[in-house]
Amino acid sequence: MKATHRSGCPINLALEVFGDRWTLLVIRDLMFAGKRSFREFLDSEEGIASNVLSDRLKRLVEHGLVSAHDDPEHRQKTIYRLTEKGIALLPILMQMGIWSLDYMPVDPAFAGLPASWRKGGAPALRRLEAELRKAHLGPGSRRE
Amino acid sequence: MKATHRSGCPINLALEVFGDRWTLLVIRDLMFAGKRSFREFLDSEEGIASNVLSDRLKRLVEHGLVSAHDDPEHRQKTIYRLTEKGIALLPILMQMGIWSLDYMPVDPAFAGLPASWRKGGAPALRRLEAELRKAHLGPGSRRE
Repeated sequence: MKATHRSGCPINLALEVFGDRWTLLVIRDLMFAGKRSFREFLDSEEGIASNVLSDRLKRLVEHGLVSAHDDPEHRQKTIYRLTEKGIALLPILMQMGIWSLDYMPVDPAFAGLPASWRKGGAPALRRLEAELRKAHLGPGSRRE
Repeated sequence: MKATHRSGCPINLALEVFGDRWTLLVIRDLMFAGKRSFREFLDSEEGIASNVLSDRLKRLVEHGLVSAHDDPEHRQKTIYRLTEKGIALLPILMQMGIWSLDYMPVDPAFAGLPASWRKGGAPALRRLEAELRKAHLGPGSRRE
């Protein structure tokens, strides 16, 4: 994806990719909710609009954070998986979750995961990264 | 700041506060560029529009991430400082910088800081947090 960047600052460049209210929710659903299809992403509590979801998925694929594959079980259906570049967002999402735990009204039903991240530290991150690689990049997941 | 939330998910709640292309750039300028005033934030390479900056600063104060103070040297001028809640965003920004270092075309002039974060790990984070607390919350910084 070639584009003119607002600046070469690393924070800015990251925000150019996922600095909006929806993109990281799709990443979240891929990482933690086991969701893989458009319909599954659409069915989220936050109520993402269909056209917004479509745009964000397109951008995620263009930026190389997500890969799109034919679903062997349903022709004409696409399934999405995280790439290595997408999995590498994990520490950012973990830190966001931990921050919210301290400062936002997190639903107790969703508090266990970030609490375990804070407690688990770097080893928990490595473990989760390995699980995501297996689920999204492993031989069983390659359906191109 | 009372508001209806899209969901109680910690990732969503964080995005409701800073899920846009500009908010974290203001935080970045407060954290790493020593900027404190509207005019200084306006003068960024990314070219934030005056009305957008004004809106984002207002929201940051409402959300309690930034505090606004009278500048004793210039009447009618406001200076902004990070609160504890704002300083707590540091690990998120660090992880964003590290991610960009691996995956985005970071300007070499800006690469040193995230490279040092990656190398420095948790101790570097603690050190930087202490510096930010001193600069933004310390007795010399309280001008209310």
